Amino acid sequence: MRIARAAHAGGIGYGVVEGERLTLLDDPHTLPTDRHAVNPGRTSFRLRDVRLLAPVEPRTIVGMAHNTGPADRNLPPQAFLKPARSAIGPHEAIPLAAAIGRVDVEGELAVVIGRPARHLRPVDALDAVLGYTVANDVTARDLQQVDPLWTTAKGYDGFTPLGPWIETDLDPSDAVVRIHVNGSPLAPASTARLARDVTEILVYLTSFMTLGPGDVVLTGAPGQYAAIHPGDQVTVTVDGIGSLHNSATQLTGAPA
Amino acid sequence: MRIARAAHAGGIGYGVVEGERLTLLDDPHTLPTDRHAVNPGRTSFRLRDVRLLAPVEPRTIVGMAHNTGPADRNLPPQAFLKPARSAIGPHEAIPLAAAIGRVDVEGELAVVIGRPARHLRPVDALDAVLGYTVANDVTARDLQQVDPLWTTAKGYDGFTPLGPWIETDLDPSDAVVRIHVNGSPLAPASTARLARDVTEILVYLTSFMTLGPGDVVLTGAPGQYAAIHPGDQVTVTVDGIGSLHNSATQLTGAPA
Repeated sequence: MRIARAAHAGGIGYGVVEGERLTLLDDPHTLPTDRHAVNPGRTSFRLRDVRLLAPVEPRTIVGMAHNTGPADRNLPPQAFLKPARSAIGPHEAIPLAAAIGRVDVEGELAVVIGRPARHLRPVDALDAVLGYTVANDVTARDLQQVDPLWTTAKGYDGFTPLGPWIETDLDPSDAVVRIHVNGSPLAPASTARLARDVTEILVYLTSFMTLGPGDVVLTGAPGQYAAIHPGDQVTVTVDGIGSLHNSATQLTGAPA
Repeated sequence: MRIARAAHAGGIGYGVVEGERLTLLDDPHTLPTDRHAVNPGRTSFRLRDVRLLAPVEPRTIVGMAHNTGPADRNLPPQAFLKPARSAIGPHEAIPLAAAIGRVDVEGELAVVIGRPARHLRPVDALDAVLGYTVANDVTARDLQQVDPLWTTAKGYDGFTPLGPWIETDLDPSDAVVRIHVNGSPLAPASTARLARDVTEILVYLTSFMTLGPGDVVLTGAPGQYAAIHPGDQVTVTVDGIGSLHNSATQLTGAPA
């Protein structure tokens, strides 16, 4: 099942996407906490008549550092935080500041949490998951060198595109992640390559912090990444979920 | 004016504290965005009959690294994020995991944002501020060595006590911060010592990220800090705001 958040003629709400239609939930203002208890209501729209938004408004966006391939298993697990307000939706612009140097797009499987989760055990870790979406963990590569805490490197407004929806039925252990920049594909790779899988990641994170409804966990980029520049069109696809399109623009609005 | 968030006989809401009374706002479920537009309603409680909570539910908690004294001016500004869910209120417990080594309390002036803020200029940066509260930026000192991104060191549940309320009328440039551990005072210091003041901090942060209503900015610890252990009572005071009391407890609940 695909759960989307959308701006429609009557406002903003959560709905279920089937084919070319979005049907609002019975309670469209509350993210479901359980993928087995999603109740569509009676109001529906053609998908082309709504605007899909980032599928959640997270309080926490947390990512796994050094989790791209098997060799990273030799490193201790390590996480980073991104500002919750850095989340943007499909087709929103990724604003790039001129002075920050190289900016990369990283395609990742993102976990959307359904229920408050702390001290998860491997056996039931996935029960806390509502579903999965596609993330672009935009990263200012040069800034990682001058800002060892990564706050600016990962934290610019617009650096966390999410969408197009939450897929509740997906095997996170072997989902292929693809990136296209201006239509050209980079080398794809499966989440099976990640040093730590979703269960291990959730057990690690909830060993120190609570994850709650709507929180987003970025699992790491298993595939190739690439630098982007203003004007570039970027698509991140996770097979079994869908494709997330965004364009890079020049950041404007800074005081002179 | 003191704006508090409290659990009372009728639920949870924002109110204004005057003397020994809390008067709920006209719209008690919405944090005011402007300190000049705070409208108390007609419902009030004795302060001793309510329970003060963390005065905001931030989406962003961001702190300044290396901002404790004048020497830090030689370093570039650097920020770190704390999980929004790490915020706790007055008298809530700070749970300490046995395995994480030394944990310090850091007393800080915290800025509470009122209005969406991006690209603030020095001349109007403080217009985005709703007010100020007291923060304890609890930090697992040993974990900063093994986790260079500080995510665990700063990010355990309960590591961001905030309160007791938001003071809208304060000069942030010279506010004395005090810590008592089990009643014994550490050396106090004024925010005047901080390498960068609130205006500079807000200009820096909003040069890359949006701060929004209810977000919290930790400005850095100008004074002495100290290790805490389960059973310790910690009070952080900022003169002109008030005192924030919390106790440290042993973390329980981890799977065996």
